[in-house]
Amino acid sequence: MAGNTWGQMFRVSTFGESHGGAVGAVVDGCPAGLDLSEADIQPALDRRRPGQSSITTPRKEEDQIQILSGVFEGKTTGTPILLLAHNKDARSSDYHALLSVYRPGHADFTYEKKYGLRDWRGSGRASARETLARVAAGAIAQKYLRERCGVSFVSYVQQVGPIVAELPLGKLFIEDIEANMVRCPDAAKAAEMIALIEEVQSEGDSVGGVIRGEIRGVPAGLGEPVFDKLPAELGKAMLSINAVKGFEIGSGFAGVAWRGSQHNDAFGVDATGAVRPITNHAGGTLGGISTGELLYFRVAFKPVSTIRKRQETANKAGERIDLEAAGRHDPCVVPRAVPIVDAMAALVIMDLWMRHHTTARDLGAD
Amino acid sequence: MAGNTWGQMFRVSTFGESHGGAVGAVVDGCPAGLDLSEADIQPALDRRRPGQSSITTPRKEEDQIQILSGVFEGKTTGTPILLLAHNKDARSSDYHALLSVYRPGHADFTYEKKYGLRDWRGSGRASARETLARVAAGAIAQKYLRERCGVSFVSYVQQVGPIVAELPLGKLFIEDIEANMVRCPDAAKAAEMIALIEEVQSEGDSVGGVIRGEIRGVPAGLGEPVFDKLPAELGKAMLSINAVKGFEIGSGFAGVAWRGSQHNDAFGVDATGAVRPITNHAGGTLGGISTGELLYFRVAFKPVSTIRKRQETANKAGERIDLEAAGRHDPCVVPRAVPIVDAMAALVIMDLWMRHHTTARDLGAD
Amino acid sequence: MAGNTWGQMFRVSTFGESHGGAVGAVVDGCPAGLDLSEADIQPALDRRRPGQSSITTPRKEEDQIQILSGVFEGKTTGTPILLLAHNKDARSSDYHALLSVYRPGHADFTYEKKYGLRDWRGSGRASARETLARVAAGAIAQKYLRERCGVSFVSYVQQVGPIVAELPLGKLFIEDIEANMVRCPDAAKAAEMIALIEEVQSEGDSVGGVIRGEIRGVPAGLGEPVFDKLPAELGKAMLSINAVKGFEIGSGFAGVAWRGSQHNDAFGVDATGAVRPITNHAGGTLGGISTGELLYFRVAFKPVSTIRKRQETANKAGERIDLEAAGRHDPCVVPRAVPIVDAMAALVIMDLWMRHHTTARDLGAD
Amino acid sequence: MAGNTWGQMFRVSTFGESHGGAVGAVVDGCPAGLDLSEADIQPALDRRRPGQSSITTPRKEEDQIQILSGVFEGKTTGTPILLLAHNKDARSSDYHALLSVYRPGHADFTYEKKYGLRDWRGSGRASARETLARVAAGAIAQKYLRERCGVSFVSYVQQVGPIVAELPLGKLFIEDIEANMVRCPDAAKAAEMIALIEEVQSEGDSVGGVIRGEIRGVPAGLGEPVFDKLPAELGKAMLSINAVKGFEIGSGFAGVAWRGSQHNDAFGVDATGAVRPITNHAGGTLGGISTGELLYFRVAFKPVSTIRKRQETANKAGERIDLEAAGRHDPCVVPRAVPIVDAMAALVIMDLWMRHHTTARDLGAD
Repeated sequence: MAGNTWGQMFRVSTFGESHGGAVGAVVDGCPAGLDLSEADIQPALDRRRPGQSSITTPRKEEDQIQILSGVFEGKTTGTPILLLAHNKDARSSDYHALLSVYRPGHADFTYEKKYGLRDWRGSGRASARETLARVAAGAIAQKYLRERCGVSFVSYVQQVGPIVAELPLGKLFIEDIEANMVRCPDAAKAAEMIALIEEVQSEGDSVGGVIRGEIRGVPAGLGEPVFDKLPAELGKAMLSINAVKGFEIGSGFAGVAWRGSQHNDAFGVDATGAVRPITNHAGGTLGGISTGELLYFRVAFKPVSTIRKRQETANKAGERIDLEAAGRHDPCVVPRAVPIVDAMAALVIMDLWMRHHTTARDLGAD
Repeated sequence: MAGNTWGQMFRVSTFGESHGGAVGAVVDGCPAGLDLSEADIQPALDRRRPGQSSITTPRKEEDQIQILSGVFEGKTTGTPILLLAHNKDARSSDYHALLSVYRPGHADFTYEKKYGLRDWRGSGRASARETLARVAAGAIAQKYLRERCGVSFVSYVQQVGPIVAELPLGKLFIEDIEANMVRCPDAAKAAEMIALIEEVQSEGDSVGGVIRGEIRGVPAGLGEPVFDKLPAELGKAMLSINAVKGFEIGSGFAGVAWRGSQHNDAFGVDATGAVRPITNHAGGTLGGISTGELLYFRVAFKPVSTIRKRQETANKAGERIDLEAAGRHDPCVVPRAVPIVDAMAALVIMDLWMRHHTTARDLGAD
Repeated sequence: MAGNTWGQMFRVSTFGESHGGAVGAVVDGCPAGLDLSEADIQPALDRRRPGQSSITTPRKEEDQIQILSGVFEGKTTGTPILLLAHNKDARSSDYHALLSVYRPGHADFTYEKKYGLRDWRGSGRASARETLARVAAGAIAQKYLRERCGVSFVSYVQQVGPIVAELPLGKLFIEDIEANMVRCPDAAKAAEMIALIEEVQSEGDSVGGVIRGEIRGVPAGLGEPVFDKLPAELGKAMLSINAVKGFEIGSGFAGVAWRGSQHNDAFGVDATGAVRPITNHAGGTLGGISTGELLYFRVAFKPVSTIRKRQETANKAGERIDLEAAGRHDPCVVPRAVPIVDAMAALVIMDLWMRHHTTARDLGAD
Repeated sequence: MAGNTWGQMFRVSTFGESHGGAVGAVVDGCPAGLDLSEADIQPALDRRRPGQSSITTPRKEEDQIQILSGVFEGKTTGTPILLLAHNKDARSSDYHALLSVYRPGHADFTYEKKYGLRDWRGSGRASARETLARVAAGAIAQKYLRERCGVSFVSYVQQVGPIVAELPLGKLFIEDIEANMVRCPDAAKAAEMIALIEEVQSEGDSVGGVIRGEIRGVPAGLGEPVFDKLPAELGKAMLSINAVKGFEIGSGFAGVAWRGSQHNDAFGVDATGAVRPITNHAGGTLGGISTGELLYFRVAFKPVSTIRKRQETANKAGERIDLEAAGRHDPCVVPRAVPIVDAMAALVIMDLWMRHHTTARDLGAD
């Protein structure tokens, strides 16, 4: 069974290679009656788009999305939604020289091992262009969750290379994040990060980063033990994004050094009289189910594999190759990955939201 | 859709609460013709069993597994395998006082929010006793992969609280790991870890830890882009284990600070003439597909939630409760979690191995 | 991917061979809060049980079901329900002579071709004993649907061999059906059918039959186009039962000869002012979705394959074998298959009911 | 969970409404390395196309398919294949008058009940135009199965209204079937059928029919007990096609009247020395698994719901409506449904073929 579908209820099946005819997704299971048009999706795509600032790749891609089914008179009909973006800037000749080369850090080698052949134009299916489809589908989930359930997704860059920003949880606005091109809502740190990225860029090199994601307004009860726990689904979603090497939720790796008596979030009664955890070291889940508190997590991105700097590697025939990348690339992926993290988080919560409605309560008669 | 099944091909559906009638699993999709008996499973269960050493819970559980279907004359038949362990030491009266209390760090609160009611005896379905079923099913996968594909699973404790062992990759033997009761194959660090655990135990508290897992002998080609990439499936598997808060593969969070030119694993030709990566910062995958190199990853476990130390919390009615745990517990979960990490890793690789055989190559005629 | 699970939401995974340790099912996804005990399941099993009358097999089976997880204090908890029946009357020595014989009409040959080996004791996994698990799981679905949604399942024997009963739709009571041992609610035809079965039985032969099923009280809206239409799911469920060779819904094969102007069910307004179809040739669905009218369908069962009469066949080595069945068998399967048809119909409707609640309407905020 | 995906391994997800932007499918899981272009698909679509003869609807549809991903340099790459056909002849104004009318026999009523709203242009998602996507995806499966496994699909019209052709099993050629426009390979009966269809057409009415399908060359071993048996999957596939009301395999409903001693297919040794069934009343399966013999089955299609003849029905408001269809329609659907039956049969066998390779044998090491 191939792995190009996300979700059980809100099912997103993506397709497309960087230099094929089109990329996109079929969204099956979106509830009927949601107001939807391309204008609801495009803003998220614009945050992901190459060429949006001086620290992203100058490559121009056609990220114009079309809705070709599943919407009638401005509303979803409950039938599959086809989201399609044609590929335009397909300079596959750029890649012809790489036809039999295994670029370090890239999937050329593994796709060939797995499938016996590969589309060598611009990483083919392994290209980050595939995330366009995730962002488009995620925008639908975000809209549904915002309008019907009051859930919102707020991610931002917390670290670039060794530069770490101290940022408060649950308090940042989207405007703070969009205030600079690195999408780190700490102006001073953002300036440092940009300087580092520019330095790396000038060297023809790349650097990694960390995005912290917040999900606000998730009610208690989402997540499906024992295997499809909320952190498990969220972790899988993040680890399925290109270049991601780590995921943690709540106290994460740092919490390992704590004592249980410090780490445990005691329950108390809040101002409204509701029983809830007083602290939130857990990051919004217990036993794999949301507590109703802020969900927060961190995602580690390795340095971008495509660099201009000369590298030595081998080709299929085992010959030594000196590689200097002809393609255009990002020196650091995290600024453009922020909307991808939001999108994947939205796909997770949307699916768990829908799953919860069948597994967890008395459905009653209609 | 509830979440009690792991895998697409090698499907493991677990059931059971800590104090119900039984726990176990149905394994559907195990290839026919594998030699199998209870004796192949019991050793893994013994590594997970409570009461195995002075630093684990003294609670005795009945971990005797029975195979009740799917095996005939010592071989798997291709039909579902029922693995069953009856619950014996069911002192549910221990828990009656906790009927309406929300224990800090436990899933009492969230199960009640999700399902409207909960089995309050010893954490019910959220109990770590559920992992018995994972270990039993994982033992079948481990046996298959060892015998047919030469794959092995070697996990060990790398960190307890703040104590970190420096351990070489790909070189440790199971005997090194079993040499001490904390399962850290560095004798000096193990002694420090044990001392810390004993201290914490005497305080009625708990502490977290990190397990590093290795998977050896995985051929190139496993993993199903774009959503079911190998790191995504592995991360989900680990994050579905009780108390896990973080997962990283290869360079993980630390790799963020590197430059691409350092991080990229160049390809070269090895002594046998095969093209392969010379270094392995990636941790054995590229583009979500195995490279044929060692797979290694780290899993963060929070401090155990059950502690003897007095804690203040609330009950369902919003009343303040002083809680002193009557139940028996582990001061640190990682020594017993080592076989659970192995088992979940085996379920991931077994499933991806089987999936690869349908998605990736020309199946040909039989 | 093996095929031992039914359903997407109300997932039933069965296990067990006729002469292994146990048969049963794990039911995952049953909503929490349903009152449930073994007493809710046993009556359905008793209708399926061998040895219940003079026209069924005299073989005695242990059909006592246990619930070993997922129920606490008499209510479902939302976690997996293990239903287990141990095998007792396991006279596998009866079958030893058949070890390498391919019995005509049986699955001996195909299981061996598929899996390379087979459990030769009493048909193994292909035994009708497997339907015990379906009936047990179906009893839970029937209870839920009856109590929460007012849906009921009423099946009966309409044909045995060439003897066909004319029976009104939507008007029969369970008492009418249970009034005789062939479960045909037409006393005169039932007597003929019984006479035929007894004749066939005395000859050591067998005969087929047709069951008509009705599902009453299903609201409009169930069924998931385009592939998981209600008739498609229902047909698959019936065709997965041992010995079934045909399925039709509404006008079925006979409707082929009609004109569209006769067949089309016009809409009108009923006594309550509701718009609904005036006739119901469609059998309760349009476009694969329930209309709110009576669902009715017919299921064809071939003559039982096990007969006492001497048959000539071959064994694995290609040797000619004269076969006279030593085992005990039913001369006609339909009387005992009535509760199996009800159970499978209930699994279909329960699953589609739950699926409808996620796909079809605005879920709203909780 | 919505129902727009067929298959576990060879997964076909269709999308599109009759008058939306496009219809098509994403095929995920097609093995890499298959030669594929649009030219492999178009002939099957041409057999399905409206307007192909005087007895089909004169409506012209744009059935030109594009492959927009998953194929590189003429070969499948193992990544998702997007099949897309834009909608051109979208005279939705034809349908505006029907905006609130419930057409008899159509899904207008049920889609509205299910989703709360509906695309009223030409039946929307319930339109038979959706089957274009099935035929396109099925053509890929047919090509794979023909080239790699020697399996072929041969369906034809056996009955129109009351006119039944006697046709030999396993002996007909595609040329016999294409010899006339009704696709019944019995010239005399075909002439009668055409005369009947023309009569019905002139009356503005419609009539039903039966297609018999054959699948040749399927090896023994396909089908996944106990729920995903070959007849169950095949039956579901057929019952998911618009207008289908019945399915039978092998002896089907007629076999009910036989004795077991007549119906059982004894095993013998064939000319090549292989053990196999001598007769084939079973229709090519035993215990839900293919025997290696010819698979044959029958599919009943109701009379087309769209007729020109005046019909009385109701609208949403409960008002009486006199309906005379403005749209263009087929007087009998079976001639054009032949390639749809082939396509669905191919999707079933392809999926079971791939599933068999993971469930049924020792996969061995690569």
